[in-house]
Amino acid sequence: MKNYKMIITYDGTRYYGWEHQPTTDMTIQGKLESVLSAMTGTEVEVIGAGRTDAGVHAKGMVANAHMETKMKEDDICDYMNRYLPEDICVQEVRIASDRFHSRYNAQGKTYCYTCYVGDKKPVFNRKYVNIIEGKLDVEAMKKAADILTGEHDYASFCGNPKMKKSTVREIYSIDVSLKGSFLNLTYHGSGFLQYMVRILSGTLLEVGQGKRTPESMYELLEERNRSLAGATAPAKGLCLLKVDYSKEA
Amino acid sequence: MKNYKMIITYDGTRYYGWEHQPTTDMTIQGKLESVLSAMTGTEVEVIGAGRTDAGVHAKGMVANAHMETKMKEDDICDYMNRYLPEDICVQEVRIASDRFHSRYNAQGKTYCYTCYVGDKKPVFNRKYVNIIEGKLDVEAMKKAADILTGEHDYASFCGNPKMKKSTVREIYSIDVSLKGSFLNLTYHGSGFLQYMVRILSGTLLEVGQGKRTPESMYELLEERNRSLAGATAPAKGLCLLKVDYSKEA
Repeated sequence: MKNYKMIITYDGTRYYGWEHQPTTDMTIQGKLESVLSAMTGTEVEVIGAGRTDAGVHAKGMVANAHMETKMKEDDICDYMNRYLPEDICVQEVRIASDRFHSRYNAQGKTYCYTCYVGDKKPVFNRKYVNIIEGKLDVEAMKKAADILTGEHDYASFCGNPKMKKSTVREIYSIDVSLKGSFLNLTYHGSGFLQYMVRILSGTLLEVGQGKRTPESMYELLEERNRSLAGATAPAKGLCLLKVDYSKEA
Repeated sequence: MKNYKMIITYDGTRYYGWEHQPTTDMTIQGKLESVLSAMTGTEVEVIGAGRTDAGVHAKGMVANAHMETKMKEDDICDYMNRYLPEDICVQEVRIASDRFHSRYNAQGKTYCYTCYVGDKKPVFNRKYVNIIEGKLDVEAMKKAADILTGEHDYASFCGNPKMKKSTVREIYSIDVSLKGSFLNLTYHGSGFLQYMVRILSGTLLEVGQGKRTPESMYELLEERNRSLAGATAPAKGLCLLKVDYSKEA
């Protein structure tokens, strides 16, 4: 039995998120497990570094699975890509240490939230962006993003009202960058709470629209009250870019 | 009654091509006409510079329509974009001369045929590329493209076996360029026969795969026989980039 680490890209549009659902097989985890179970002839569990929501995309999701197979890593990768649907692709498969756990060992994650701010509809990118009408004050958004960076209690940005564990996280950086008609909000942090990146993005967009001041972010962090933060931005603008591990992992 | 010229972008994936079909309303022309007919309260005919096939995309299709309306050009554009589906977008509307005809006055067209030649599946671009497995000899394709450029009888590259008019066309340039994992075949010509760009692309791909020599293009042009050319490349890799008109149009 070996422990395989995989890097996975997917277009989340058609899926009910990463995690298994009792009523549908349209989950990323479900698709991966069904291909690997067919490959090995035995039930395989795929553990993901995070549980992306329905409609969220990934360029660099990391997962691991313990499997018994004589196939080489590259052949496993080719097999998976042959049988997975065209909107899921395995970039790499390699043997990890037995103890490697893609979620518990993750030291950081990078997400990008993409907004489209052009005049005309983004015909070819429409499934990967949040379309924003009207102008955004990007400088105000940068100021707010700076205030939200650091180690804080992000309870105001947590989508799970029953969250019992700590809501303290560290965001290493939030980069707000306008490239042509695309505004990218790139978050690098130790970890993120449920819907946290989408609530942060929705809040930053409200700052950009002049509905909130950058300085009001201080109060938001202090209040620890989800109802005070902005709307949860639509899933389709979000993409998991990268998961960090220590060198050994 | 004024004559309006429009530039239109569309993702052709869901459509049965540009032109009206008796059995479906899923055509680009049909969608445009139904919005403009609703806007003016009277039947509007939209004339396109070309009739793209089912599944073919466009960034710069040009069309014109004679309409009676008090709305300004920008307001017409906004109205259309509000009511058109998210995969069709009008970039610009402006008043043209009464005699302007988007098809008869077109002096040239630029098409791009995009092939994906990377190792892994192109998850996010999958609907806009032809996925090619194995290596391509790009230099051989460039040589073949040069031979196919110029004024020739392209009967071997015409998909319509009942074509009665001249099959002579002039291709000003065929640019073969590899950018990362994407190979773009960009055609600029006076006009193109039915399926011509896709048959040229299928033939050039067979040259790239070593199934034909660049020199065999001379014979292909001479023979004037569709069955001797390569396969018609899939529609989804093709995009109409631009239509040229004289300055006055």
